[in-house]
Amino acid sequence: MTVIDFAAFIGRLATSSGDTILPFFRTSLTIDNKKAGRDFDPVTEADRAGEAVMRRLIKGSFPQHGIVGEEFGNEREDADYVWVLDPIDGTKSFIAGFPVWGTLIALLHKGSPVYGMMHQPYIGERFSGDNGAASYKGPSGERKLTVRRCASLREATLFTTSPLLMNDTDRATFERVQAEARLTRFGGDCYAYCMLAAGQLDLVIETELKPYDVAALIPIITGAGGIITTWDGQPAQNGGRIVAAGDKRVHEAAMKILNG
Amino acid sequence: MTVIDFAAFIGRLATSSGDTILPFFRTSLTIDNKKAGRDFDPVTEADRAGEAVMRRLIKGSFPQHGIVGEEFGNEREDADYVWVLDPIDGTKSFIAGFPVWGTLIALLHKGSPVYGMMHQPYIGERFSGDNGAASYKGPSGERKLTVRRCASLREATLFTTSPLLMNDTDRATFERVQAEARLTRFGGDCYAYCMLAAGQLDLVIETELKPYDVAALIPIITGAGGIITTWDGQPAQNGGRIVAAGDKRVHEAAMKILNG
Repeated sequence: MTVIDFAAFIGRLATSSGDTILPFFRTSLTIDNKKAGRDFDPVTEADRAGEAVMRRLIKGSFPQHGIVGEEFGNEREDADYVWVLDPIDGTKSFIAGFPVWGTLIALLHKGSPVYGMMHQPYIGERFSGDNGAASYKGPSGERKLTVRRCASLREATLFTTSPLLMNDTDRATFERVQAEARLTRFGGDCYAYCMLAAGQLDLVIETELKPYDVAALIPIITGAGGIITTWDGQPAQNGGRIVAAGDKRVHEAAMKILNG
Repeated sequence: MTVIDFAAFIGRLATSSGDTILPFFRTSLTIDNKKAGRDFDPVTEADRAGEAVMRRLIKGSFPQHGIVGEEFGNEREDADYVWVLDPIDGTKSFIAGFPVWGTLIALLHKGSPVYGMMHQPYIGERFSGDNGAASYKGPSGERKLTVRRCASLREATLFTTSPLLMNDTDRATFERVQAEARLTRFGGDCYAYCMLAAGQLDLVIETELKPYDVAALIPIITGAGGIITTWDGQPAQNGGRIVAAGDKRVHEAAMKILNG
């Protein structure tokens, strides 16, 4: 079985997790939280339910595979194939009712991500990649994802979810890159990486990422022609301090500043 | 003709402007900006095309009405009925490919907004209101919008698009409210007001708004049971410094600090 056989299965994971998560989104449109009890936390419920349904499907089809998830921990992490799951990336957007969160699904083979998907079930859009290519499917149809060219940091649009998520040292370093960039915007979570793959922005720099925050995004960015590494140039799948760029000239320029 | 007759017409405006704007959204997915010439600015093109199509429809159906728009200025501002149009509220989100911008359409009668709609054509969701009621129509169906209760500022989630949009004095005042709120988040533009109407957040405070940034949101917030005024308690339709809350206790508490 080649890696490409997993694409349809990942589509099923996305559909099932989306169906499970959506009833919890914008719950105050339908549910009076007071009635549901004071401990009712829609995003936690949705996160757990979404991960549970994906784990059940994976175990049913690939019982020998490993699973790493945000909500229910790690199983068989040393298997050849390991699934890395984040049912809701962007929980703050989810809580406020903003449809810019996503479900992240990655498949690792011998430790390297070989397939990744970001699924936004409310909008009905999916971004996926296998390192060789990346694609979009959603309200405006289906198409290939390609990064845009950007010759220098001075022309680059930079994103980070929030500089407040960084420690003081990293934030100071980040701000040296920010000072060189054309424009910096905050927020975005998984959407920032997918919009980088779609050629809408040029650079994403973050810290403190968990493997499940980033693994699914790597094959998408790489497949779209971009580059994503840790600040010290290592593979990004273990998380930590991450720098992603659409154009390798921007990646190199950012790396130079990030590494002093 | 009563105000309620305009609802179907506003729906047509939203559909036509959405169809006109969407081809410019995430254009780098389809268009190489280099080929389109260095002056190609998708958001400006989309803004102008969206407003032009709405103006044409309004003039065709209601030639006696006035129109106030972001792109093409004001016509017959002193008419009994005046349309206030903002084809793309949230241009920075639009440019980055984030689907959290919206088309704002307001109808004023003798200077007061009597109907408003926020339309997000990519997602296909509409928030509308006539001061008496407000409703949602989109991927999760159709329903009434209702603000949530919130007893005090200490329990409130506060939104503003960016404190950097405020002058120094206003920002200092805003930060005194922020210090009392449970949680503050940045970003959102029209989505923050609609999520307030949907009961997802409690308070929105902004400054420097234009009439077309806010007029359409007033009948939605009021219709959902919320309150929206200027910082000094005047009607909000002329823009300026705006404070919107789902619960009047939160509005009063914020007003006390904003004027204190």
